[in-house]
Amino acid sequence: MPPLAPRSGDAIFANVERVNAELFTLTYGAIVRQLLTDLEEVEEVNKQLDQMGYNIGIRLIDEFLAKSNVSRCVDFKETAEVIAKVGLKMFLGVAASVTNWDADGTCCSLILEDNPLVDFVELPDTCQGLYYCNILSGVIRGALEMVSMKTEVTWIRDMLRGDDAFELQLKLVKQVPEEYPYKDDE
Amino acid sequence: MPPLAPRSGDAIFANVERVNAELFTLTYGAIVRQLLTDLEEVEEVNKQLDQMGYNIGIRLIDEFLAKSNVSRCVDFKETAEVIAKVGLKMFLGVAASVTNWDADGTCCSLILEDNPLVDFVELPDTCQGLYYCNILSGVIRGALEMVSMKTEVTWIRDMLRGDDAFELQLKLVKQVPEEYPYKDDE
Repeated sequence: MPPLAPRSGDAIFANVERVNAELFTLTYGAIVRQLLTDLEEVEEVNKQLDQMGYNIGIRLIDEFLAKSNVSRCVDFKETAEVIAKVGLKMFLGVAASVTNWDADGTCCSLILEDNPLVDFVELPDTCQGLYYCNILSGVIRGALEMVSMKTEVTWIRDMLRGDDAFELQLKLVKQVPEEYPYKDDE
Repeated sequence: MPPLAPRSGDAIFANVERVNAELFTLTYGAIVRQLLTDLEEVEEVNKQLDQMGYNIGIRLIDEFLAKSNVSRCVDFKETAEVIAKVGLKMFLGVAASVTNWDADGTCCSLILEDNPLVDFVELPDTCQGLYYCNILSGVIRGALEMVSMKTEVTWIRDMLRGDDAFELQLKLVKQVPEEYPYKDDE
């Protein structure tokens, strides 16, 4: 049987179970507020959101691989496109464009067209150092690590900080060679 | 113009913006884990989840009223039916049945047919006192308070605790009379 063709983000998103985006947005807001109360330091909140995202990403990759029929990407360029057009669409219902590639194809930016995490959000002055959407960079980092790509994922532009877009930089740090499966008794 | 007819939960859910349910489930799981780490006492986590839910509920009611065309319920019985068939469906994509009414129509149970919050969740032995879904009871309590109903919302059965269903008891404590709008200069 030939391998199944990869499915579009739209097609997958239309068929997975979903919940109301506003409920998600408010629930995410409740997390951030809770962390700000508990941890006090904005920098610590950024770290914690990233870590929470990482923990989610290392699990979400399974659903992604199972539902998308995406198997192996030929290079990091294809990987970035798949995240932008299939991954983000499949989970958040929005897509991104990929831009700002460096010469050797290991660093690029995702520009989010829309961002359901921040609907109705305004940061008070006391939170100016906050990367509110840091969970998202953590998710991508975690998911990529499970498919053998060590990355740094960083917010370059953030509309909550007054920028004109959400821009997430993806930098491939190391491609870990996949281990061959082996059997104990051989 | 005649008032618009209330819309079904299915119809609303089909048209609102949504996100992937697994992302929501994992994100919610990350909150609970974070609270367990930060607060240590399971009882405190229950309280905090309820409070977070309350804060979400007092905002989510606006979206509910705006999208559902539901205006005033004639009594608490109708209110409970609307939560079960429209509210839960609209936000979580699942419905509930309403049962176990007391004689004076102020206390009933919602039995959830499905519960996206708990997919893949298993509680370790150290968390036996946890009401994992307490955010949901808080949301309902908060939302109802904004439409002048003070309630107690309590988990009676919880599948994560080994019960055969999720049963949420709704008890009307006090119906606050609605205040009349007035003008300063009259």
